[in-house]
Amino acid sequence: MSAPLPYRDPTRPVAERVADLLARMTVDEKIGQLMMWDARGEDLSCVTARHAGALLHILGDKANRAMDLAATTRLGIPLLIGEDAIHGHSFWQGATIFPTQLALACSWNPALIEQVARVTAREVVPTGIHWTFSPVLCLSRDLRWGRTGETFGEDPWLIGELGAAMIRGYQGAGLADPEGILATAKHYAGYSETQGGRDASEADLSPRKLRSYFLPPFRRAVQAGAMTFMTGYQSIDGVPSTANRWLLTEVLKDEWGFRGVLVTDWDNVGRLVHEQQVCANRAEAAAVALKAGNDLVMVTPDFFDGAREALARGLITEADLDAPCARLLALKFAMGLFEQPRRADLAEAARRTGCAAHRAINLDAARQSLVLLHNDGLLPLDPGALRRIAVIGPNADDALQQLGDWSLGSCQHPPEAGQHPRETVTTVLDGLRQLAPPGLQVLHAPGCRITDEGTEGVEEAMALAAQADVVVAVVGDHLSLVGETLSTATLELQGGQVALLDALAACGRPFVLVLVNSKPLVLPRSAGRARAILQAFNPGMCGGQAVAEAVFGQLNPSGRLAISMPVHVGQQPVFYSQVRGQHGHRYADLTQAPRWPFGHGLGYTRFAWRDARLDAREVPIGEPVTLRVTVQNVGARHGVEVVQAYVSDLVTSVTWVQRSLQGCARVELAPGESREVVITLPPEAFRLVDARGREVIEPGDFEVQVGPSSREEDLTRLPLTLHRR
Amino acid sequence: MSAPLPYRDPTRPVAERVADLLARMTVDEKIGQLMMWDARGEDLSCVTARHAGALLHILGDKANRAMDLAATTRLGIPLLIGEDAIHGHSFWQGATIFPTQLALACSWNPALIEQVARVTAREVVPTGIHWTFSPVLCLSRDLRWGRTGETFGEDPWLIGELGAAMIRGYQGAGLADPEGILATAKHYAGYSETQGGRDASEADLSPRKLRSYFLPPFRRAVQAGAMTFMTGYQSIDGVPSTANRWLLTEVLKDEWGFRGVLVTDWDNVGRLVHEQQVCANRAEAAAVALKAGNDLVMVTPDFFDGAREALARGLITEADLDAPCARLLALKFAMGLFEQPRRADLAEAARRTGCAAHRAINLDAARQSLVLLHNDGLLPLDPGALRRIAVIGPNADDALQQLGDWSLGSCQHPPEAGQHPRETVTTVLDGLRQLAPPGLQVLHAPGCRITDEGTEGVEEAMALAAQADVVVAVVGDHLSLVGETLSTATLELQGGQVALLDALAACGRPFVLVLVNSKPLVLPRSAGRARAILQAFNPGMCGGQAVAEAVFGQLNPSGRLAISMPVHVGQQPVFYSQVRGQHGHRYADLTQAPRWPFGHGLGYTRFAWRDARLDAREVPIGEPVTLRVTVQNVGARHGVEVVQAYVSDLVTSVTWVQRSLQGCARVELAPGESREVVITLPPEAFRLVDARGREVIEPGDFEVQVGPSSREEDLTRLPLTLHRR
Repeated sequence: MSAPLPYRDPTRPVAERVADLLARMTVDEKIGQLMMWDARGEDLSCVTARHAGALLHILGDKANRAMDLAATTRLGIPLLIGEDAIHGHSFWQGATIFPTQLALACSWNPALIEQVARVTAREVVPTGIHWTFSPVLCLSRDLRWGRTGETFGEDPWLIGELGAAMIRGYQGAGLADPEGILATAKHYAGYSETQGGRDASEADLSPRKLRSYFLPPFRRAVQAGAMTFMTGYQSIDGVPSTANRWLLTEVLKDEWGFRGVLVTDWDNVGRLVHEQQVCANRAEAAAVALKAGNDLVMVTPDFFDGAREALARGLITEADLDAPCARLLALKFAMGLFEQPRRADLAEAARRTGCAAHRAINLDAARQSLVLLHNDGLLPLDPGALRRIAVIGPNADDALQQLGDWSLGSCQHPPEAGQHPRETVTTVLDGLRQLAPPGLQVLHAPGCRITDEGTEGVEEAMALAAQADVVVAVVGDHLSLVGETLSTATLELQGGQVALLDALAACGRPFVLVLVNSKPLVLPRSAGRARAILQAFNPGMCGGQAVAEAVFGQLNPSGRLAISMPVHVGQQPVFYSQVRGQHGHRYADLTQAPRWPFGHGLGYTRFAWRDARLDAREVPIGEPVTLRVTVQNVGARHGVEVVQAYVSDLVTSVTWVQRSLQGCARVELAPGESREVVITLPPEAFRLVDARGREVIEPGDFEVQVGPSSREEDLTRLPLTLHRR
Repeated sequence: MSAPLPYRDPTRPVAERVADLLARMTVDEKIGQLMMWDARGEDLSCVTARHAGALLHILGDKANRAMDLAATTRLGIPLLIGEDAIHGHSFWQGATIFPTQLALACSWNPALIEQVARVTAREVVPTGIHWTFSPVLCLSRDLRWGRTGETFGEDPWLIGELGAAMIRGYQGAGLADPEGILATAKHYAGYSETQGGRDASEADLSPRKLRSYFLPPFRRAVQAGAMTFMTGYQSIDGVPSTANRWLLTEVLKDEWGFRGVLVTDWDNVGRLVHEQQVCANRAEAAAVALKAGNDLVMVTPDFFDGAREALARGLITEADLDAPCARLLALKFAMGLFEQPRRADLAEAARRTGCAAHRAINLDAARQSLVLLHNDGLLPLDPGALRRIAVIGPNADDALQQLGDWSLGSCQHPPEAGQHPRETVTTVLDGLRQLAPPGLQVLHAPGCRITDEGTEGVEEAMALAAQADVVVAVVGDHLSLVGETLSTATLELQGGQVALLDALAACGRPFVLVLVNSKPLVLPRSAGRARAILQAFNPGMCGGQAVAEAVFGQLNPSGRLAISMPVHVGQQPVFYSQVRGQHGHRYADLTQAPRWPFGHGLGYTRFAWRDARLDAREVPIGEPVTLRVTVQNVGARHGVEVVQAYVSDLVTSVTWVQRSLQGCARVELAPGESREVVITLPPEAFRLVDARGREVIEPGDFEVQVGPSSREEDLTRLPLTLHRR
């Protein structure tokens, strides 16, 4: 038996195998290797005729067919198959669909999020997928953006922590882990910060501002071992992400040492020509993308001829193909795909998909994601003391809107792809019916729709409300108002929802408002009459159960907002960590304060805080700072407090944020129990980015501010001086 | 008789006089020379004890006293006295108060604006003032900003043209012109573009974005000879304007060759410490301000000791004082103030202030500023055919709100300073009453207030409306919602105004809506029932007459919006010249199009356009491009059309604007008359700013787009190719 070709020999080092294989590849094979194709149709000829290196939107048996086909090609280079498993295995029938990132972020719980990602990977792996395009590490500061719900909220530090946890969860023990999938840190970078909150428009971000707020979560992702990055759709200061060599090569690869694969977003290379108009043709676009540092081109079929033409015209050399090709091949070798292409195993998939163990974790995630925004004491209801509750509102019993974007039924797949089985989803109505004791009647009417302003259903809903002891009104948004290309200008409740709430407020029955939606919305004046308000950002399949538990008091809500909620869209931005310096402190026609700030969240018990202190008041720059505070549950119920530690630098060489979150701890306490919480702030917690874009720690006076929210009045201020060693 | 000291000898060159005087000055005298003091109180000791170089807010006899006092000091250096003569001599009783800049900009008429500034200078000079802090050259893109009405709108080119005209008008024949006053190009730069539209907060502006849009009007101001610049209050990317050496010294002084005086805005140096927190104390702040390139420090009394301490601590050297001091002295010498301090002449002031000739120009300005936004044919009314009109709304007869900010009664002066005489102001009600023929009864009720939501007046107003053939409803904003520190979050009509319009729409009488306000507002749904809408941005003392003339048809409105008007604040920004590249073309819940775009404006006649063409389709880079189009008045009334020429670069090395205004012509035509309009676009009309911040003209395909507004569908597209010579 002859020895295998060097690149086929798994005992050789990856670098050697890459070099051997590269040397055997034609130009066309190299170009093909750099391309990822949309495989939703039946045609898989891209694998053979275009030497495709990667596919997306292909699952199960069909993925196996594609992998088998790749094995028959001249060099037998295995495919890399990616899919949008965004909050669970989005498009696999019956998969465990978790709360969205924004919902999960409200748990302030990295361990939970790691677990969610682990479960997702376990469901994804046996369906023939190697790679998920998750997590999103964008900062949501303009809430109009349709993808706000896909983010971990507004804070760079929290995003970094939660993103790292999610990456660990997806990737597991490493590239060789057969239970792991590749994570994607996306969208690199600044995609959330576009003009008017419009999707993929221009972003006004200086390199310094990027380094101050937008890049840190991505650097954290590299440190956490994220094996792929995806570029943003937008431009920054005239330069499309796809063309931004500084960002893609100098920062990501050279400065941070990222060794993985950088993939464009959907047709980013084509958009250089037809959308951003910075290239005259496909050849120029291919050259610009390669020179900037993109490794893999997602769904730009024209790239194949474009790259060939660029080579012919001398816009690129073959070395420009070799570099990204080597990265892709190295990844495939390191994953062992040449030996084991990780085909789908549908029997295993069936065992895992939506199994009870996964559902239990999903329920836990839904519970921890729930934020009690307001409560005058009405909640928790005592279900034994009630005779009738009326559950009204369009999102009370709409499985599709509850799951939100990136799920079967959302825009990424055609309607014929179906939806997740209705019985896998517990809506709020389902949950309340399931938990209502026998004597409690649960009435229901949607009252209105979100997609049109018709109010003919309001009367029926009010008739139910009139009979009820308490009303639970479930309003929110709709898939037609969420996601890519679907930014919203007003943030206001759409359709008949304002009319419904106005009628409800006027009818005088006590009501609980439940918000089931993707991102912070603006509430009408009548919502001010709600006795309690629960925020359930798309809470996943078990969301309705968690809400019902909170309403009836089986669950003590513990979520804290990972994003500030505005009073009006015109207040934007309302994120808490704004830069100092302004004349006045409010708008002439409105407060500047959000309705609820970052870090806010209520529960059914109370906590007392005492003995907040730093181990040292004077610390040399470069050493950590230790904060201690004792928290006691002084209420009558078991509960969770989230200790939040903010840093404020009092004099800075550049204008800088008033405070920034740099540590947190989730503390579970029984009634009466108290605990000393210790948070160690690493040296970099005190950094700023100076006028020349350098990260520095400036000596001088600081404060560590600790408390249960980002509100000024909730924080205890602890003075600290940092001095040069 | 002994020879005068060299610096007192007007026959010597300015440079020699400056050098001589500088050599005689103590450190304290130098520091004092760099300071401008608020002289509103009775205490003028700053002139003697602090060697003040300049004062503001001092007029007439008191200004003379201060000048005389300065003459008694050791070196007798004359004072420079500045005042906010913003749209007319704002704070001089009975002065001619013109429409605001935003209103004037809607004339698209530089000659008119030059005339307005000339009249202002003529009224200012005899009151003892040398200098006005006008014009504002900021771009209004975030309409929430309270100072939007102080700008010439949203377009860099138009702002540059109108700003240059205003500077010419103020400064007249030059520094020695006894009828001229110094103009101020302000606020340098990017002050309009702050976070959340909040006054003086952080601005996200890269050097490239500044050079693309925000700096060109200021460069134009230098070319037009503006002798002073004022810095902005805000920070850009961490650096307060006051501390921005790149902006103040490298660009303004070194690159553009600005030879005049750069003044801070109010207490900008103090704010480095107490507001922006970038300096620990007054000494650091003084040093930072001097090193950055500020020449004159407005109202930071602490600067005196701060600069002394900075010198003692070695943060600055005496040379850092000499450079700005030399600029100030040079300006004073060049103005001849050492020989003739330009004292107030109150008799002459009395002759000029608000004289008939000035009022005539003011009326012309009000007429040309008026924009007819919408008209279904109701306007012009035939007053002879009407029996009763009802004039309702809080701004129908409120002189103070009509004049707007920077006028007696606005926040810059205390209430006891009084207001301009009521008889100098023609409100809309006044105007309609004056122009109504004897048989026409003009009824009036305010209906509501802007400052509270009370609706008790609505009923009375509706009773009048019910009796009337036509209603003229005059709504808008209020001084409590306009100006520095007074940004607005919602742009919505405040107080009882929405309720009033709702009632009016419901009552069914035909109504004309007149908007008397500072900046674009968002209109409620009921405004859609208005049969015609007239926009009168604070239209000055004659505004009501112009409106009445337009309503009754004596005036054919000719204004064109210099700023786009949104449907909702959440659509922002809505300026027309946005950068290309976006997914989708609308918000999911709202159109992305403004209610009325830049360049829009109706009239009572119609124009036909034909034969639009370029003299050449292929032009070498660096040569001008000549556009011709024939416009004919095909209606029955004398009228004005504004020909607008936009440039679109079809492929650009960076993402760039879809189109930008680069020329315009205001054409007055009698019925049936036609004229060929020729617009020459200079080479720089085709420039862009590349990724490295350089202004370049890139060869390739362009379009010149010509038409009566910035709307895509209003424009004729003329292909053009620019090639390298």
